[in-house]
Parts: sequence; C-alpha cells; structure tokens
Amino acid sequence: MNTVINPALVAEHNAGERARLDADYDALAGMLQRRGVDIEALTAQAQRFALAIPSWGVGTGGTRFARFPGPGEPRNVMEKLEDCAVIHQLARVMPTVSLHFPWDAGDPAALRQAAEGYGLGFDLVNSNTFQDQAGQAHSYKFGSLTSHSAAVREQAVQHNIDCIALGRALGSKGLTVWVGDGANFPGQHNLRGALERYLDSARLIYQALPDDWLMYIEHKLFEPAFYATTIADWGTSYACATALGPKAKCLVDLGHHAPNTNIEMIVARLAQFGKLGGFHFNDSKYGDDDLDAGSIDPFQLFLVFNELADAAQRDGAAFRPAYMLDQSHNVTDPIESLMSSAVEVQRAYVQAALVDRAALRHHQERNDALQAAQTLKHAYRTDVGPILTMARVRAGAAADPVACYRAAAYREQQRRARPPRAGASGSGIV
Amino acid sequence: MNTVINPALVAEHNAGERARLDADYDALAGMLQRRGVDIEALTAQAQRFALAIPSWGVGTGGTRFARFPGPGEPRNVMEKLEDCAVIHQLARVMPTVSLHFPWDAGDPAALRQAAEGYGLGFDLVNSNTFQDQAGQAHSYKFGSLTSHSAAVREQAVQHNIDCIALGRALGSKGLTVWVGDGANFPGQHNLRGALERYLDSARLIYQALPDDWLMYIEHKLFEPAFYATTIADWGTSYACATALGPKAKCLVDLGHHAPNTNIEMIVARLAQFGKLGGFHFNDSKYGDDDLDAGSIDPFQLFLVFNELADAAQRDGAAFRPAYMLDQSHNVTDPIESLMSSAVEVQRAYVQAALVDRAALRHHQERNDALQAAQTLKHAYRTDVGPILTMARVRAGAAADPVACYRAAAYREQQRRARPPRAGASGSGIV
Amino acid sequence: MNTVINPALVAEHNAGERARLDADYDALAGMLQRRGVDIEALTAQAQRFALAIPSWGVGTGGTRFARFPGPGEPRNVMEKLEDCAVIHQLARVMPTVSLHFPWDAGDPAALRQAAEGYGLGFDLVNSNTFQDQAGQAHSYKFGSLTSHSAAVREQAVQHNIDCIALGRALGSKGLTVWVGDGANFPGQHNLRGALERYLDSARLIYQALPDDWLMYIEHKLFEPAFYATTIADWGTSYACATALGPKAKCLVDLGHHAPNTNIEMIVARLAQFGKLGGFHFNDSKYGDDDLDAGSIDPFQLFLVFNELADAAQRDGAAFRPAYMLDQSHNVTDPIESLMSSAVEVQRAYVQAALVDRAALRHHQERNDALQAAQTLKHAYRTDVGPILTMARVRAGAAADPVACYRAAAYREQQRRARPPRAGASGSGIV
Amino acid sequence: MNTVINPALVAEHNAGERARLDADYDALAGMLQRRGVDIEALTAQAQRFALAIPSWGVGTGGTRFARFPGPGEPRNVMEKLEDCAVIHQLARVMPTVSLHFPWDAGDPAALRQAAEGYGLGFDLVNSNTFQDQAGQAHSYKFGSLTSHSAAVREQAVQHNIDCIALGRALGSKGLTVWVGDGANFPGQHNLRGALERYLDSARLIYQALPDDWLMYIEHKLFEPAFYATTIADWGTSYACATALGPKAKCLVDLGHHAPNTNIEMIVARLAQFGKLGGFHFNDSKYGDDDLDAGSIDPFQLFLVFNELADAAQRDGAAFRPAYMLDQSHNVTDPIESLMSSAVEVQRAYVQAALVDRAALRHHQERNDALQAAQTLKHAYRTDVGPILTMARVRAGAAADPVACYRAAAYREQQRRARPPRAGASGSGIV
Repeated sequence: MNTVINPALVAEHNAGERARLDADYDALAGMLQRRGVDIEALTAQAQRFALAIPSWGVGTGGTRFARFPGPGEPRNVMEKLEDCAVIHQLARVMPTVSLHFPWDAGDPAALRQAAEGYGLGFDLVNSNTFQDQAGQAHSYKFGSLTSHSAAVREQAVQHNIDCIALGRALGSKGLTVWVGDGANFPGQHNLRGALERYLDSARLIYQALPDDWLMYIEHKLFEPAFYATTIADWGTSYACATALGPKAKCLVDLGHHAPNTNIEMIVARLAQFGKLGGFHFNDSKYGDDDLDAGSIDPFQLFLVFNELADAAQRDGAAFRPAYMLDQSHNVTDPIESLMSSAVEVQRAYVQAALVDRAALRHHQERNDALQAAQTLKHAYRTDVGPILTMARVRAGAAADPVACYRAAAYREQQRRARPPRAGASGSGIV
Repeated sequence: MNTVINPALVAEHNAGERARLDADYDALAGMLQRRGVDIEALTAQAQRFALAIPSWGVGTGGTRFARFPGPGEPRNVMEKLEDCAVIHQLARVMPTVSLHFPWDAGDPAALRQAAEGYGLGFDLVNSNTFQDQAGQAHSYKFGSLTSHSAAVREQAVQHNIDCIALGRALGSKGLTVWVGDGANFPGQHNLRGALERYLDSARLIYQALPDDWLMYIEHKLFEPAFYATTIADWGTSYACATALGPKAKCLVDLGHHAPNTNIEMIVARLAQFGKLGGFHFNDSKYGDDDLDAGSIDPFQLFLVFNELADAAQRDGAAFRPAYMLDQSHNVTDPIESLMSSAVEVQRAYVQAALVDRAALRHHQERNDALQAAQTLKHAYRTDVGPILTMARVRAGAAADPVACYRAAAYREQQRRARPPRAGASGSGIV
Repeated sequence: MNTVINPALVAEHNAGERARLDADYDALAGMLQRRGVDIEALTAQAQRFALAIPSWGVGTGGTRFARFPGPGEPRNVMEKLEDCAVIHQLARVMPTVSLHFPWDAGDPAALRQAAEGYGLGFDLVNSNTFQDQAGQAHSYKFGSLTSHSAAVREQAVQHNIDCIALGRALGSKGLTVWVGDGANFPGQHNLRGALERYLDSARLIYQALPDDWLMYIEHKLFEPAFYATTIADWGTSYACATALGPKAKCLVDLGHHAPNTNIEMIVARLAQFGKLGGFHFNDSKYGDDDLDAGSIDPFQLFLVFNELADAAQRDGAAFRPAYMLDQSHNVTDPIESLMSSAVEVQRAYVQAALVDRAALRHHQERNDALQAAQTLKHAYRTDVGPILTMARVRAGAAADPVACYRAAAYREQQRRARPPRAGASGSGIV
Repeated sequence: MNTVINPALVAEHNAGERARLDADYDALAGMLQRRGVDIEALTAQAQRFALAIPSWGVGTGGTRFARFPGPGEPRNVMEKLEDCAVIHQLARVMPTVSLHFPWDAGDPAALRQAAEGYGLGFDLVNSNTFQDQAGQAHSYKFGSLTSHSAAVREQAVQHNIDCIALGRALGSKGLTVWVGDGANFPGQHNLRGALERYLDSARLIYQALPDDWLMYIEHKLFEPAFYATTIADWGTSYACATALGPKAKCLVDLGHHAPNTNIEMIVARLAQFGKLGGFHFNDSKYGDDDLDAGSIDPFQLFLVFNELADAAQRDGAAFRPAYMLDQSHNVTDPIESLMSSAVEVQRAYVQAALVDRAALRHHQERNDALQAAQTLKHAYRTDVGPILTMARVRAGAAADPVACYRAAAYREQQRRARPPRAGASGSGIV
C-alpha cells in the first residue's frame, strides 16, 4: 500500500503513546470486567466499523457570506484521494471515498488505480443537479428533477444515469440523490405537481440502476429552497422510496430536520419499514450547520446508534446501512476534522454496543423509566477512548491521529506543493 | 327547530346591520366584478361550508398550571349541546358536534333527540385513553394502545370499540384516535416495539369499523410525552394508515408539528397519497397552543385551504375531508371564540376559492415566482367579510354573531342557571 | 430628475389603470367612511412612508450551494444606482440607497451626483468584516472585532471608521455594524472574552461617530457562525448599545431570531428602553431566509408596525427608526422583488395606521381579549391596496410597478447593455 | 440528625458496593494521574457541591391532559420535608429545600424545627400568582403583577411581601418571582404597558427585600401564555433586573428558551453583566418539558457548568449562583428522579472542574478550534462516576442512592402510611 505519511513516523508516535495506552486500556478492561463486559470483544467490534469519506469534505467549506480557504487544499480529485489516504492511514476507520459528480469526474480506471494504491475503495456516488456547470445546456435555477421543463428534467435524469455508469466503473454499489428543488414563495410551485414530476424523473433513474445497486433518497427541510422543499422530510422520502421499489432507500442526514425533531425515532421508523438506507453524519445547532459529528450533541449521536444496534439485533445481516460523514469544515483543517469526527462516530457505535439490551428490555417491560434511561446512560458515560485508540494502534494507524498528522507536517508540505489557482477553489462547496 | 336565542333578537340585530352590510356588499361586488368575479357564486359557496364543534370546546380550557373557569359553563353533555345550539344558530357554519367519550357519555337516543331539536348533527366521535377514569381497571400512565400490558391494550381497544358503538347510535361516520402514548426518557420505550404494539392494537379497532366508517389517526409531536411520541409525525401516521387499510386516514391538527414545519405541504402530500382524512383547526405560536384558528398566522390558514382547493379541483367529489375546530379557550368566552374562529376558517375557505387557478398555473409554468405569489396574495388580501356576513344573514344567522350573542345576555343567564359544582369542571380539559 | 424609464410609458400605464383605480378607491372610501375613517388621511400618510434600498439587493442572491445569476445584473455601484432609480421612479416609496463597503466603494462626489440626478439620497452605510477582500493584510477567518489578534481588530475598526468617512461624504447619518463573529465549536471561543473584545473594538468605532450620527448594532442568531454568535440576540445587542452610549442603537432584522420568537415584542421592548434604531425587513420560514417582506407571514409584519404605531403615538417625533429592506432575491428579478416588497411594508404601515387605538385600549382595559384581537384583525383585513395605488399615482409613480416595469422592458435592455464579466458577479452576495 | 432511612441499611448497601467502588476509584485515579490530575481534589470538590430540592418536586407531576399519581405521595409540607430528608440522606448533595407559597404555607417555627431535625435548611422561597387559591379576593386569570386592575396588582405584590416574611422566618435569603402573565391573542395586551405595570409592581416587592436578600426574576418563553409572555426572555429579565437595582438578579431555567437557543451563552452574558442569580435545572426536548436534568442533552449541561467554572475563576467568591432542580416527575418515583438528577448536575460540575483551562486558553488564542473543542470533550468524556460515588460514601450517603432507596422500601411504607385524600393531590402541579 502506498502510504502518504511515513510509517516510521507513525510507529514512533505510537511508541510514545504506548505505555499510557496500555495502562489506560488495562484500567478500563478491569472496570468493564467488573461489569461483566469483555473489552477485547469491543475492541474487535471497533475495528470492524467503517464509514466513508466525502471527497468534498477535504476542501475548506464556507457559507453564502464567505469561504476562507486553508493552505494546501486539494485542487482536483487526485489530490483529494491523496488527502483521503492520509485519513485512512492515520485513523483506519474510513476506508472508502464517496465521489460527487461532476466535481470529481475523471478517468475511472485512473481513479480506481490511485485509490487501490492507497488501500481505498469507492462508496456511494453522488449526483449534482443543484448547481449549473459551465457549458450546461439547461439551468437548474428553477429545479431539476421537478422542473416544469421536460428538457431540464431529461438533462437531470441523464446526469444521474451518467453517475451510475461512472460509479459502476469505480466499483460503487449505490447512488445518492439529493435535489434542492423547491420554492421560495407560496404559490411558486404547485406542491403536488412538483412531487409528481419528481417521481416521474426518479422512476427513470431507478430503472437505470444495476441489479445490485441501491438508490438513496436524501431529504432536507430547507436550503437552498426557503419556503417549500419537494423532498423535505422523512415522510416524503419514505413515500417516494416505497413508490419506486425495493432498491430505493432513504438516507438520513442528521442536520436536515426541523428543530426539536427526534431523529433517532425517524431512524427506528425507517428501520422498521425496511427503508433505512444510510446516513450523512454531522452535527448542528440551528439548521443544516454541517458541523463535526458529535461536536454539539454527542448523546443524540449515541441514541442514533442505539437504534442501529437494536435494528442490527432484530434484522441481522440484512441490516447494512451506508455510513458517511457529510460536514463543512469552515474553521478547521479538513483532514483533522474528518479524522476526529470519524472517531466520534465510531465512539458512539462502541458505546451503543455496550448497552445491556437484556437489562434495558427488562426495565422497559416493567415501565421502569428511570432504570431504562440509566441503562443507556451507563453505556454512554463509559469512556471508551482506550478501546478506540487500541483498535487504531493494532491496525497500524496512529494512537492520536491529529497529533501524529501535525507531527508529520503534511499540511505544510501541501501548502508548498499545491499553490492555489487564481480565482479557484479546490472544494465543491462555495 | 328549537332556538336558544330569541329569533326576534337576531332579526332586530340584523336589521340594525342591514344598511351597512348592503352598502359594503355592493361595494365589494363592484370590486370583484372589475376582477371578473361573481360575488354571488362566492356567497353561495360560503353558505355550503361547514365544520364541526368539539363538545369539549364549550368549556373553559386551561394549562398544567391552572384553569380559570368562566361563568355559566356547561356541566354535562346536554348543557354542552345547548351551547352548541347557540353557536349554530348565530354563526350557521357549525351544524355538527363532535363528542368525546367517556366525557360525553349519555343515552344516545336522548342525545340524538336533543341535537335534532337544535338542528344539530353528530360528526366524528373521539376516544380517550390519555386519562384514567374513576373505577377504571387499568391505568394508562404508561401507555394505552402501546402498553406492554396486554390487559391495558385490551381495555384501550375495547374503549375505542365502545366509542364506535356509541357513534353508530348517534349517526356518526368516523372515529378519531389520538393517543398520547410515548416516553419521557431515552430508553423508556423500545421505539420500534411501541409502534408494533400500536399497530396490533389499531388493527383490532380497524376491524370493528362499520363499512361506511373511517378511522382518523391523529399525530402530535409532543405532550403529554416529552421525549418520544409514538405517533409523532405525518410520516408515521401515513405509514400506519397505509398498513391498516383504505378506511384509515390521517388527521392533521395544525398545532401538532415541529417548529418551522410547512404544514400546507403535509396537506398536499396526504391529499396526493389519498390519506388526508381531516383537520383539527386552531392556531399556535410555540407548541400545541390551541389558540383560536387564524389568530396568529392567518396566511398559513389560507395556504392550507389553497391546497384543499387544489385537491378538490383534482379529485372532485371524492375529496371530502372532515373539518373541526380543536381549541382551548383559556381567556375568552368559549362560545364567542368558537363562533369567531369558525368564521376565520370559513374566511380562508372563501379566500382560497378566489384564487385565479388558471393564472396561478400560468405563472408556475413560466417560473414566474413573483406573479405566482401575487396571485395567491391577491385573493388573500381581498376582504371577503361582507360575503361571510351576507351568507349568515341570508341563512337566518346573526350579521355579527359575537355582538348579537352579547346582546342576548346568554352567558349571564347561564351564570345563574348553571352554578358550578364544588370541585368540578364542566370541561374535560383541566 | 433623470428618469430611467420613459415617463410617457408610466403615464400611459397609469391611464390604463385609472378607471378601475378610481372605482376601487371610491368603493373603499365608502367602506372606510362607514367605519368613520377618512381615506384621504390614510393616502397622505402612505405617501409619507419611506424605506431604503439595500444596494446589494439589486443583484441576484444565492446560497452556499449555488447562485443562479439573472440577466442584466448591475456590475458596479453606478449600475446599481441606475437600478435603484427605476425602483424609486416606479414605486416612489424607496427614495434612499444604503451602500455596503467595500463593495460599493467609489468616488463619493460622483456617487452623490449620480444619486441626486436620480432624486435619490443615501441612507445608512454598512461595513463588511465578514469577508476577506483581495489584498487585505489580515484575514477575518477567525473573527474581526472580536479577534484575538490586535492587528485584526485594528484593521476591522479602521474599516468601520473609513466607512463613516465615506458616509459623511455621501450625506449619510448612520453606520450599521453587523459582524458574523462567533464560533463553530464549543470551546472555540471564550464566550465572555469574545464579547469583551467586541465592546473594546466597538468603543473605538463609537468614538469616531460624528455628533449627528447613530451606530446601529445588528444581532443575528447564527450563520456564518453555527455554534455561538457573539451578537446573537436582542439582549446582547441592547446590553452593548447601553454600554456604548446614547448614539448606539439596536437594529432588528426580522430573520435573525430563534424559531417561535415573538419579534413584535422585541420591537416593543427596544422602543420602551429607547434603543430601537431601525429595521432590516424581509421574511423567513426557517432561518435567515431573506425572502421578500410579507411573503410568508404578512400578519407578523402588521404586528410589528402595530408596535411602531404605538411607539410613535407614545414618543412622538423623537421616534424615527430607520427602515430598510434586506433580502436575497434568488429566483426573482431583484427590481421586481424590491418594488413589491416595499409596497408590502408600506401596506403594513397603512394597516397599522387603521387600528382604532382607542377601541383597542378600551378592550384591553376590560380584558376583552377577543374584541381586542378583532380590533387588530379588522384593520389588518382591510384591503388597503387602492390607497397604496392612489398614493403612487398621485406621486407620479406607476399604478402597478411590476407591470409597468415589464412593459418598459428595462431588464431586456440591460441584458444587452451589461454583459456579464467572466467569472464575476455583480452582487456582493455569493 | 433524624434519619428516615435506617442507617444500618445504608451501611450494608455501601459495604456491598465497597470493593468495586475502590477498584474503580483506583483505576480512575490512575488514569487521571497520567493526565496530571489529582482525583482527591476532585472528590473534595464534588463534596462541596450543593443544590436545592424544590418542595413541589416530591409529588408526581402531570400535564394539562392528565396527572397519574404515584403511591404514597406527600399530602402536606411536613410529608414533603420527610421525602426531602430521604433525598438528603441518600444522595448528600441536596441539603436545602425551596418552598412554594401558599402551597407550603405552615407554621415557620415548626417547619424550621422539622427541617433542622433532618439536617435540612431552606433555600429561596417562591411566590405563586399564576393560580387562584380558594377564598382569594381577586382572580389572576388576566394577570397578576401586570394586571390592569390596581387591586389585583396590590394583592399580587402583597403575596410576594408575605412570602418574604415567611422566608425570613425560615432563614431563607431570597425570593424567586415567576409570573406567567401574558397574552393569548395579538392585541390582548399592550406589550409595553404590561411591562411598565410589571416594573411598577416589582419595585414594590424589591423595596420590601431585607438588606441581605436577593430577588430572582425568572423568565419563560411561553406557557401558560401562548402569544406573548411579559417576562419572556433573558433580555427582558436583564433589563428589569437592571432597572430594579443591585439586589435583583436573573434566574435561568434551562427549559424556558426558544428552540435552538445557546443557553450557555446566556449564562456567560448574565455572568459578565453581574446579573446571574441562579438556576432551575431540568432538561427538555420540545418546550418547558421539565424532564430530569441531563436526561436529554447532558453535553449542554456540561457546557453550562463550563461557563460557571469560567465565571468562578474570573469573579472568585463573589460568584455564588443559587442552584435548584425544577422538574416534573410524571412517570418516575419523584424521590428517585430528584436523587439521580442531582447526581447528574453534580457530574457536570465535576466534569467542568476537569477542564484544563490553561490548555483551553492556549488553543483559543491560536484559533485552534479543533483542539479547543477536544479540550472540553476530553473533560466531558471522563467517566467521573467513581468520584461521585466516593464523595457520597465518604459523606455517609448511599453508593447507589436509587438502589439503596428501593432496598429500603420507603415508597411501599408510605403507600400505606399516606393513603390519598379523595379528590386531592399531594403535589402543587396538577
């Protein structure tokens, strides 16, 4: 495997952390043992967890007001893959990359070769009909899959079909479809007509899916449309996925809901109805803030994984949602945010695995709300950090990915190697 | 028909308003004519509009902190019917009453006779499994249709079946099922298990429905449960109604949604999927505030009726949602609030009828968002008050229902006739 | 005055609308007279109302996902003034322009001459420390007035002082200071330290104010910062304005509040405490959506003006808040949106003037909530459109500004006259 | 001290937990030592933490829909004190009781003697003008301190003055004033007039404060008023506290804010401006849900204490906010909820003490958002449970308060000793 960071540096870093890690791991092992829990089973489980890197996440994000680029940003998909390789090498929890077209368009064979060299695979591919591209025949200003114009709809459908073709060449097995289509004014859309056109367009994409592919419908309450968004909530997403057929699933982005929404209940509902396709993990306080996963409400992230653990127990191997980060890194080094966010998601996964499900069920059946709640909290409060660190070290990754990354001075190297192009941004998010 | 208010008094009131009404009506007729609209068609349409009175609405409502009863409150279902008769007589837009059991339990034949005497009919009946009743075998403290206890579920199912029987005897054609079941703590419920039990219970109720009845599922985001409510959103309601069968529909209470939710889009979605059963009209600023319809956001109420007009145009006579007020009158005379709220709903209905749908479609198809929005606003801004007044006067109701009601001193009479029982409340809402 | 649209065309348009306007105006005059209201007084009042055009509003806005430019967008401040002149000519309710620096930097004398030629004046000026400009010494990526770096703070303070100098040369009398400073992560800022630095910086700007100037502090709940914004709410704005002194006031943007916030009460509070400086009018459903004023919740806009009318009655001539639109026109022609939004604000102003304040007080003192509410609704429901149209026609503006603007084909002319520059945007909002 | 639970039972319980506690405590001590932290200092700090029990919290709460009482509820203030004694004995973190008048009215000397017998003191007293009491001269239906009626205002002011007198006799040092006054309809109140009357009334209460007392103003966004609440937000509370004088402070209830509000920033603001009086701790997901502290968003609770630790460091001994729980226990045993909630608050306090403030400042000054955030998370993720348990055991309380309480069968005893009175509730919350 082509390593971007010098493995000797990683080994040296880990050697420096070793004594403390072993001591902490042993201390935690003892505490867990006194609760009847085997730490090794959890560490092994932590090592099996994986989520995908969004290719656009390695560039600095921004808002409608401004974007403040960081140094050494990747300027093309090959440089993005290089950054992903760093993440994979140091955190060993994000072994795949999710590409976004046309941002990441390139020769599939070359992309595949580069990725394999880094030990990376390709996860879901993403289409983009929320922006106009240079030279595009028709504008998406007034919608894409829902447009009143048949020509616009055809263009948008064809783009999705093209994405499937690219994805097949890359070894991907799914297409995520997010459209920002909607209205800024009451009356701008016939709300029902817009969804009818969406379904007509989506059916054409669905028909183009290979047998072993899934189509993931992503809903979002608002932005870029500010009065009504065609696929605004899980109810609409679920109804559409049902109308399309068994290969259509719903994708949950944690930031795409109304204030106060109980997101873990949406997860439970979609799992129950067989339509939970996957996740875009991030965190938020106000709207679709795209902050680092677990940075604002880590207990909510745990509760989501608690539902996923329940579903996995009920549905077994058939239950395999796709996990991905989807964040906008406006004030941090994107590589650092992606690594530490991935660890946060992995942490929630391991904490959820710690829940004593038999005890939980026992308390639930007796209406013992207090002890049921404490059963969850007991698992959540456990500091599983040593487990995550040990899982990384055993896999050859860094004990402290961010510290090791800083020690490697990768960003400083790229600052010199990747001078910014005038007037251009390496990130798709502007 | 037994009139509660002296008809001579109504006639006298109307005589006093006549000259001004005629002048205003003529002025509006001219303005509409210059827009190509026939006022008489609108007035006729206004007269056909009807919505149901909630029997519990004629008592003073309250909050968990306090209830401040008003004078002369009805102390039993017969007195509630008397108050409903006043509303019907003066506003002539609420010809039916929706009863809530066991609050309104009584001899069906006597109830029917009393109602018919007043010219009133019975609309949907409502079950109550969110409170414990004296002498009840099992408590609903930890749920009703979703309870872990089979005995509790059976009791709750049987109560709903009893409500159907009572409703049949009254001439009703539908049952509204709202359960507050949910959890106050993460972990208290297995979220998926609770919905499975709900569906099992609901199927038993569904099976008891007469052929010409519908079952209305009402969702609510929160309260009385504050962490997770089993039927919390339209997505869950829709999925359950679909699972149950064609006689199950969804009921939309305007106050039961997350902040910022686009409710008119939910209306459009349920109409599109054939599951829009009916409405509980009210208004709110924060939560399920149960304020008077149209008092906080009258434009939203209009936009809801704009969707209903669209659905009626598309689906024709098959589209017949059930309309009802559901409000908590904490600081006003309930009779006054019900009359004026009913007029607000009727106003939105007439304004929506004024929308130039051909022009709207024209603008929508050309992506002319500004003119599409103005087309709605043009209808909404029209002061249709003279139409509503004329519709009432022609039907024998009062030009100004509140003024006429005050002139009749009905409340003052009831203050004497209905002394409060010690420690008791005439309203189910405490 | 230099007219951009041919006055003969406006006259012709008005001639075509005249008969209908007169008939509608007479009909409304009669209706108002029967309520004891003199229409002429209202029309005169409508003519006195004015609000400022934001220079950035004449360009097409966008979101962080995309901007879809319209044809013929202004490419510099002179072209922006030309568009403002069209708005002023056709709607006659926006006689001033609010500039944003450095976007609108230019020779003040030339700007003033151009504006005066169009009959336009200059309202408040706005500083910009939320974006980096080419060639800027220090970046605002981590804050401006609150930065940990003294050099950054000095640069930001100096920019504000420069804006004051530019404003003086233009005849402006106030500076609006909005900073997006804040944090995306818990811990990123010491919340108290950030406000201390803000106050230190703001004091330096305050000291540079001319005697007859005011400084307007604008708060905003979130965006671009997504965890904590230093000036996030009216409480912080009020505390800072108090700390700074009598020339510091608070500016209320209708879209900058938490969900469910009662904005009209904030208006009442700031008026009571003598700190209500002015408004950025727009509308929103979710966050800072910057939609057209009155397009989502017109009753709220009326309630805001109801408070303003109350304050004007209490405080007399001393009460002179600054009014401005601040909207992002993403899917409409910005000139059309600005004209129709200004009319919406004017409409709310006239409706609030219609409120029978003596009757309102009477009902309030008797705790007659229903009639108090109806007193407001009675004014709000009045279709004052003919008054607004007559006010325009009498002032030489267009009866229907949008129809007249379309008939003039101004946008089509500018499409040819202002070809877009490659890679550039005429709007500051990207 | 009069112990309610047999001390031998507590000792036996603790003996059973001892070995595991010691092992866990030692393991944690080692982990902390490797981070340079002395566990004993933290344990000592945990032992110094205290918060008050709300007397009304020991009864079962409810909603406007229903209250489902639990067995053995206290029926008077003496029985409430007995329950508080159990909490104090087993958790040793709630040594004081906050009484609510007139619910808890009684002979002060007898109350004081009973409390002292249990080792309990009295914290802030609370007035109640949001309910009508039997035999009361004037109703609060339309407001109390803000009423249009001078007689109502006088009655409400006098009640507060009476509460101060009762509080003095009990040894309390402060009065919390929460009024639900507000409006359910736009127009019902003159928003500014209502606050003027509030300030007039509040000044009379303020003048009656003893020299060493503080008056705590509690704001609340909504409920029981659903359109506008007079003291709705921290801005109004702060402005009123400033207007009243130095003995007036602001009290923050975590559930009394708009959705998405950053509460820890409000804490920082009030601390900065010298007006942070104290807290009502609880948790919520939707509105004022009054759930158990830390049960929904434990990280937010930690962030609040992070601000309190910052303020304590800045302001030293002068910074002494009053801490209290204020929860509604609808589905749990209130004693269990109060004990476990108090431990949650104490947990957040100890976690905040673990924050490395020098490192935090270091990262903040370098704009290292990621490491600043991780510095907080590092402290938050530490499972300080063994510290809290050890603090209890050393103080003679129970290692596991809930388990020990259940073993003592206190509730079962009270079920027999306190049969419910017909038609009555032992709780003030109905």
